Amino acid sequence: MKIIESTDAAHAHVRRRTGKSVLVPTMGALHRGHLELIRVAREHAGNAGEVAVSIFVNPLQFEPGSDFEKYPRPESADEKFCEDAGVNLLFRPRQMYFDDRSVYVEETRLSAGLCGASRPGHFQGVCTVVAKLFNLLAPAATVFGEKDYQQLAVIRRMVRDLNFPIEIIGVPTVREADGLALSSRNQYLSADERAAAPALYQAMLRVKELAAGGENSVSKLIDVAKEVVSPAKRARIDYITIVDAENLEPLENLRPNALIALAVFVGETRLIDNLRLT
Amino acid sequence: MKIIESTDAAHAHVRRRTGKSVLVPTMGALHRGHLELIRVAREHAGNAGEVAVSIFVNPLQFEPGSDFEKYPRPESADEKFCEDAGVNLLFRPRQMYFDDRSVYVEETRLSAGLCGASRPGHFQGVCTVVAKLFNLLAPAATVFGEKDYQQLAVIRRMVRDLNFPIEIIGVPTVREADGLALSSRNQYLSADERAAAPALYQAMLRVKELAAGGENSVSKLIDVAKEVVSPAKRARIDYITIVDAENLEPLENLRPNALIALAVFVGETRLIDNLRLT
Repeated sequence: MKIIESTDAAHAHVRRRTGKSVLVPTMGALHRGHLELIRVAREHAGNAGEVAVSIFVNPLQFEPGSDFEKYPRPESADEKFCEDAGVNLLFRPRQMYFDDRSVYVEETRLSAGLCGASRPGHFQGVCTVVAKLFNLLAPAATVFGEKDYQQLAVIRRMVRDLNFPIEIIGVPTVREADGLALSSRNQYLSADERAAAPALYQAMLRVKELAAGGENSVSKLIDVAKEVVSPAKRARIDYITIVDAENLEPLENLRPNALIALAVFVGETRLIDNLRLT
Repeated sequence: MKIIESTDAAHAHVRRRTGKSVLVPTMGALHRGHLELIRVAREHAGNAGEVAVSIFVNPLQFEPGSDFEKYPRPESADEKFCEDAGVNLLFRPRQMYFDDRSVYVEETRLSAGLCGASRPGHFQGVCTVVAKLFNLLAPAATVFGEKDYQQLAVIRRMVRDLNFPIEIIGVPTVREADGLALSSRNQYLSADERAAAPALYQAMLRVKELAAGGENSVSKLIDVAKEVVSPAKRARIDYITIVDAENLEPLENLRPNALIALAVFVGETRLIDNLRLT
């Protein structure tokens, strides 16, 4: 496995590279969810192709007061993880921004609601760093988890609107046995909080059941989700919403392509998840 | 000369292309200034390389109420011009934006003053379309005229901050015999206005003379420039300013790397120009 730690070396690598490269952008603290992204990337790259993983805890996508400082950075474990997973290139840049940086990529519609409303500047940070990674590593395709559904939608839109010649591959969420979506932030949870966290998935499943049974009113479905989540220990709802899965507009009544998305603080840890309802 | 009129065909062309490509982005209405850009592009591409010219009158960079509708679009003359100039690829997209577009590239520092202050949204439009052209045509290098000095600085910053693997080449302004910088907008000028327009260059030359003679006060130098421009028929100054050529910050006293930049309406036509003072 080749390791690259500078932007210049990334450009030089791309100039010499032959064959198809598939990129898995991450912030590290790698877990089984990432392993699934790497597996899908390998499937698309083929054995002769390159699977590249980037690890960069991107300061621009952490809103003020959030967990940038404490975000886990298990560098040597992540390196071994990539090696064991058969990754060809690990891009672990030491420096991504100039102090006098002044150029940003902004998505103005899909990023307005959901997590974008709670985390001002988050998606501008995501778009900017992903555009940089695309320019640095020139992948033919890139893999994103559906757990961060809004992020996936925003990146798809960025690729379309800025004409990046890159295929975007969404990968279904990997869950623990009790339904909790895998996330690097799960390690923040105390034992009590961990026990409470599956309420997010249970709430979404309950809503999906009711929807399958014919309940059509979004406000009623959201009330049910709140009733499932609220009693969970130390849980505080940031948002629970049902949107069109394409344009992320909130729905009043269920229709094909509906998606439930939620963000819940469990203790100090903000967890997100989502599920297709139809 | 190959002509491409769709974004899909541009991506397909790039996938098949071998060798170096140098891009000259334009809005058409090609003149001797563009010919010089094409000449420099050929120098950099080599005879085996590709010189690509894009022609697209980009609605996003015209602020409301400006000359988007009347901007000249001499399509067949431009095509012949490119053919005669030895251009290999003419990219003349019929459609560049989706109706529900929502992704923009924004530069927040260099674009704040000068033309950016008079033309809100202009540089966001420029950055967005140039990022799209870079992704569509994947040039190794691209050529911009120094006449649009702020544009060149903003694009350099975008390439740096977003890590585009693209060399930016600035080309000195081409002028008429009387000093008027070549511009597609010069054709808007009436005979009287055309006769008045060289006042812009004369004012800058006068300032440069005084600076060479030791005058150091920017406010005094700008007053002199105003005295030269103001009497010109139908002239109305938008701005005259002296800035650092790197970061475009206004100066109070001359120092190495000073640049005078101005925008003047002559009749209804807004002309811009600039000159290094040191």
